[in-house]
Amino acid sequence: MNIFQKLPYFCVNKPVVTGNIESMSEKARRSGTVFRPHFKTHQSLEVAGIFKKLEVKKITVSSLEMADFFASAGFTDITIGIPVNFNLLDEINHLAKQIQLNLVFSDVNTPVEKIRQLSRNTAVYIEIDTGYKRSGIAVEKTDKIGILYRKIRDAGLQFKGFFSHFGNTYSSRSKQEILEIYRNSVRQLTELKNIYQTSISIGDTPSASLLDSFEGVDEIRPGNFVYYDLMQYKLGVCELNDIAAYVMATVIAKYPERKELIIHAGAVHLSKEYLVQDNQKIYGKIAILENSIIKGIESGTELISLSQEHGIVACSDEFFNKTNLYDNIAIIPVHSCLTANLMKNATILD
Amino acid sequence: MNIFQKLPYFCVNKPVVTGNIESMSEKARRSGTVFRPHFKTHQSLEVAGIFKKLEVKKITVSSLEMADFFASAGFTDITIGIPVNFNLLDEINHLAKQIQLNLVFSDVNTPVEKIRQLSRNTAVYIEIDTGYKRSGIAVEKTDKIGILYRKIRDAGLQFKGFFSHFGNTYSSRSKQEILEIYRNSVRQLTELKNIYQTSISIGDTPSASLLDSFEGVDEIRPGNFVYYDLMQYKLGVCELNDIAAYVMATVIAKYPERKELIIHAGAVHLSKEYLVQDNQKIYGKIAILENSIIKGIESGTELISLSQEHGIVACSDEFFNKTNLYDNIAIIPVHSCLTANLMKNATILD
Repeated sequence: MNIFQKLPYFCVNKPVVTGNIESMSEKARRSGTVFRPHFKTHQSLEVAGIFKKLEVKKITVSSLEMADFFASAGFTDITIGIPVNFNLLDEINHLAKQIQLNLVFSDVNTPVEKIRQLSRNTAVYIEIDTGYKRSGIAVEKTDKIGILYRKIRDAGLQFKGFFSHFGNTYSSRSKQEILEIYRNSVRQLTELKNIYQTSISIGDTPSASLLDSFEGVDEIRPGNFVYYDLMQYKLGVCELNDIAAYVMATVIAKYPERKELIIHAGAVHLSKEYLVQDNQKIYGKIAILENSIIKGIESGTELISLSQEHGIVACSDEFFNKTNLYDNIAIIPVHSCLTANLMKNATILD
Repeated sequence: MNIFQKLPYFCVNKPVVTGNIESMSEKARRSGTVFRPHFKTHQSLEVAGIFKKLEVKKITVSSLEMADFFASAGFTDITIGIPVNFNLLDEINHLAKQIQLNLVFSDVNTPVEKIRQLSRNTAVYIEIDTGYKRSGIAVEKTDKIGILYRKIRDAGLQFKGFFSHFGNTYSSRSKQEILEIYRNSVRQLTELKNIYQTSISIGDTPSASLLDSFEGVDEIRPGNFVYYDLMQYKLGVCELNDIAAYVMATVIAKYPERKELIIHAGAVHLSKEYLVQDNQKIYGKIAILENSIIKGIESGTELISLSQEHGIVACSDEFFNKTNLYDNIAIIPVHSCLTANLMKNATILD
């Protein structure tokens, strides 16, 4: 039985998403760069459909399950954008029978006997760390890169080039800093590209959004740009009305002495990702909507606390007074990928 | 199609869960207190089955969907433990036809015309805030409590008593402080109980775990105690081997120069809840298991970073050296409720 209208619910503005996708797609086309968007952000067949209309057929995902899901939806060239897990060798080879499956090798000690057991249909990227310090072989470890490259070639697998995620752009303090990380990282990857006569695949939303052209880059894989969020807005890489996703949550209590509203939206809806503003954790802001598009933010009003299902909104006098018990208010998430993952079924607004 | 063995996966040790439940149930029984556990922690039919065997029939949940889910599983007396959302009036009344449904009123301005539309089968608690400052009428606002009480009575609904969650115990720095919050809060609620000749319902895991008896308390609603987690262990309210749940995640890269492991477990598996230790955020610790029971923690080894699907484990030399690529390691979550909500299907270990 499902008698329930969903509250809170996750709204996705389709025209805004479409605009975000078209703009990124067009930029890639102009640069002669393959556009392989990361689908972990939305995990949505409806958003996937927008990409399909633009003839985007190559995608990135972050798990085998997600690859399987989008393979069933007709995507036939899929990169699993995290270090390969050889405990899932059978599952990998099973999927490689159905689609062009691309894997990422991130450790020089990836075992030769495992590599040899991979289906010859798979192609392999080597992941390079240009400074984010998450996964990938550090770009200066050219000896290790060489060893891993030879393992792939000796096993008779297709080498697909160098793969990198400039995740350090997310902690930048200015657009300048984001662009600097991008340029330095691309410069280092280009040296490798020239040595190995191969291609490079990159793609974080902050740099991909700020750049006008991806010259010299063979493939981009941004994901978050379909929805954007408060984090991207704070970084200065999108405008408010580019943010395509928000959570509608009901005011379930009002406390005038604290000027606080309690909403039914918590960590299981928005995730506990936060920003820091004036030494205060912020889990979301309240959108001012016009025709379901985010046109502004309620000033002096912040989502300051999240427990499992409750949120606390500290309000300006004005917002507190104009907001009634059982009003539904629109929360802009800090990190839309995590919110989309939690909320699953989006309400698509045409 | 589901060809995939799940990695990472969420393990629940059934004998440990059973021990946690029996111990809390027995304490409630000895105190003559109704045991109405919060099921938001596990959301699991298998864990629900353990409660059923102990004749626990009254439960707490945090949403109408969850109430509906456990109503279908045979629970016939359910409290929705967050402030009522009157936008869902039809759904509430629909459910009230099938089970004894108990609601929580937390705002003095709860509208009379809405209250009058509620099914006469529902019973209503008034939520009191004894210091947590989330939801509930502040305990000293006796005038507001009186107004809300009369609204319930005038609408002909059954008044079920005073309801409170001492969530401030979670930020306590000592067992003493937890017990002090409990005693002060119960003292204040008892004054109300005596005035209104009614009952009181409380129940946070920290105080419920530390206490030997709930004398004077009519009902308890702890939830997290079924699994416990790192947060509860740090508060000193459980032992390591009381923690019943952990995430098994694969080491997908090793970086000797950083003494860091990359695991396939991220924010979409564990949640971004963290503890702070030596000014460092900790998203989980590595369990030392014996027969699937947590017997220790790998010292000098912490999960220090989580992105959507990757985790970074900063290691002691010893742990780094003994751990191999593709080993599965056991991560103790910071907040098991959020992890269980994300991982959904637990692997139950008998």
